[in-house]
Amino acid sequence: MRGAVLHAPRDVRYEERDDPTIIKPADAVIRISATCVCGSDLWPYRGADQVTGPTPMGHEYCGTVQEVGGEVRSIKPGQFVIGSFFASDNTCPNCQVGYQSSCQHAEFVGGAQASLQRVPLADGTLVATPGVPSEDLIPSLLSLSDVMGTGWFAANAANVKPGSTVAVVGDGAVGLLGVLSAKQMGAERIIAMSRHQSRQRLASDFGATDIVTERGDDGVARIKELTHGVGADAVLECVGTQQSMMQAIRSTRPGGSVGYVGVPHGVELDGHELFFSHVHLHGGPAPVRRFLPELIDLVWNGKINPGKVFDLTLTLDQVAEAYRAMDERRAIKVLLRP
Amino acid sequence: MRGAVLHAPRDVRYEERDDPTIIKPADAVIRISATCVCGSDLWPYRGADQVTGPTPMGHEYCGTVQEVGGEVRSIKPGQFVIGSFFASDNTCPNCQVGYQSSCQHAEFVGGAQASLQRVPLADGTLVATPGVPSEDLIPSLLSLSDVMGTGWFAANAANVKPGSTVAVVGDGAVGLLGVLSAKQMGAERIIAMSRHQSRQRLASDFGATDIVTERGDDGVARIKELTHGVGADAVLECVGTQQSMMQAIRSTRPGGSVGYVGVPHGVELDGHELFFSHVHLHGGPAPVRRFLPELIDLVWNGKINPGKVFDLTLTLDQVAEAYRAMDERRAIKVLLRP
Repeated sequence: MRGAVLHAPRDVRYEERDDPTIIKPADAVIRISATCVCGSDLWPYRGADQVTGPTPMGHEYCGTVQEVGGEVRSIKPGQFVIGSFFASDNTCPNCQVGYQSSCQHAEFVGGAQASLQRVPLADGTLVATPGVPSEDLIPSLLSLSDVMGTGWFAANAANVKPGSTVAVVGDGAVGLLGVLSAKQMGAERIIAMSRHQSRQRLASDFGATDIVTERGDDGVARIKELTHGVGADAVLECVGTQQSMMQAIRSTRPGGSVGYVGVPHGVELDGHELFFSHVHLHGGPAPVRRFLPELIDLVWNGKINPGKVFDLTLTLDQVAEAYRAMDERRAIKVLLRP
Repeated sequence: MRGAVLHAPRDVRYEERDDPTIIKPADAVIRISATCVCGSDLWPYRGADQVTGPTPMGHEYCGTVQEVGGEVRSIKPGQFVIGSFFASDNTCPNCQVGYQSSCQHAEFVGGAQASLQRVPLADGTLVATPGVPSEDLIPSLLSLSDVMGTGWFAANAANVKPGSTVAVVGDGAVGLLGVLSAKQMGAERIIAMSRHQSRQRLASDFGATDIVTERGDDGVARIKELTHGVGADAVLECVGTQQSMMQAIRSTRPGGSVGYVGVPHGVELDGHELFFSHVHLHGGPAPVRRFLPELIDLVWNGKINPGKVFDLTLTLDQVAEAYRAMDERRAIKVLLRP
């Protein structure tokens, strides 16, 4: 088969790779229906994360089970399934409390920008849809694999409740789906921080009530102004830089919560400032598996349409262009079909 | 009147100060029944916080209302009252959600190691006991002013629940009362981290089920060992150093919570490590006022006896010896009577 491989910063190639096979008896191999490029793929693409050798790319996937190992019990060939970027057994103590991305046997699922994908711990990792989905549901179902699950976790970690005032730092796909998640959880006011018109529009579609274009301390001042000097109840941090993290913490009211899901790059938090901010801080790699059954249900029944975040669809052999479009912010998120 | 004044590191004097008076119409002046030395008083005493000039010391107090300003409505002369080290109006948006130590009109109440004390925002700050307390209740009631309120907040911020496994970092008075708080909140297992026999004994009296003497990464390894490799559900950080903070974070299970109340000195948190730890982080200056009614009730009805944390009682004119005893760790906490 062929798949995307990153050779060096900005050098991603669609090339021949070995077909994945069942290696361990808990594995499954699935035929990818759709995959995509993640904001976090841009870190190595841009050279911010070191590329040590040719790296198969992609970790968002949904598709049809092709083959399962001898120990797989609940997942069956022919099912349409979605999984997270972290395989998990879903039975260890960390999984049992809903932190499957910290599973004691977690394994990163890489190389999904391809036509076939091996998924370890298939029974714990994969969740089947109620039936074979119609074509129009594929983008939304794919989004649950990471980007929507991560936006949802940001809102969950930020303790969004009915009536909350929410601010979202970051207008990438995760931030935009954080807006949708906050709306779905009943937030009354949702302030999206964005200075790009197309993203502002999508944020409004997803439920944003206010747009703030200022950044850093000016952005914080604007959030304070919009909240009678108090700050937001819940702030979703969806970037991962020092500036965005401090913007999130400083925009939160005392006793409020920051949910942070942007993978931190060079972030250092000053203990003294954090102490006197009185915020709750929670985040990390989203335990997508916890949310999959509920989110599949919401998509299947047409309650949410997170697939709208894909504003460009290409075929897998155009993967290099997909990275370029996202790197240059010409596209919010690119869907790739085999 | 006379009161304690810090002139320079390790130079605390009991000397003549002006009698406090009503300055603003929301003030009260109270006659101190008991006060004490706080672990945080040791930061400037030891020179870790800069001493810029003669500083009246002490911020833990209870006593009898002597006089009130013209705007004071609920607090009356003759009442026995307890207040926090942060005066608060108890009506602003931050107070209303229980973060009175971030009150928009917060004012630090200093200089309580004396016979009289001015308390701003008396109606919002002070809580009266149901009647005049008997002598034996005074130490426990005094403790509510800060040390017990802070230990309670640590357990509350760490989300201690019935059945929780809790670890407490720090065997000072706050840590020990964190143990008592966790016990009162229904924790099943409470691991106190201490290498001092007298403190270990008191921790056990307060409800600790296990004692860990190791520190730093060895302490973390021991906690992991005691929790089947998972970590504690809730960890109370009651010191405020880089080592204690990291010990707390690394001892917590994914999805668990750190409640941190030690005022951070030189603490820097690495965003990347925090992200992958999956912990909840919450803390800050304890909103003691939120807890006062409940804690007064528990003390008044003999349900808790936090006053046991005072293992030395001196008179106010012996205040220099009180600081020395705590600095040299000869005493856990010193009660001072006028």
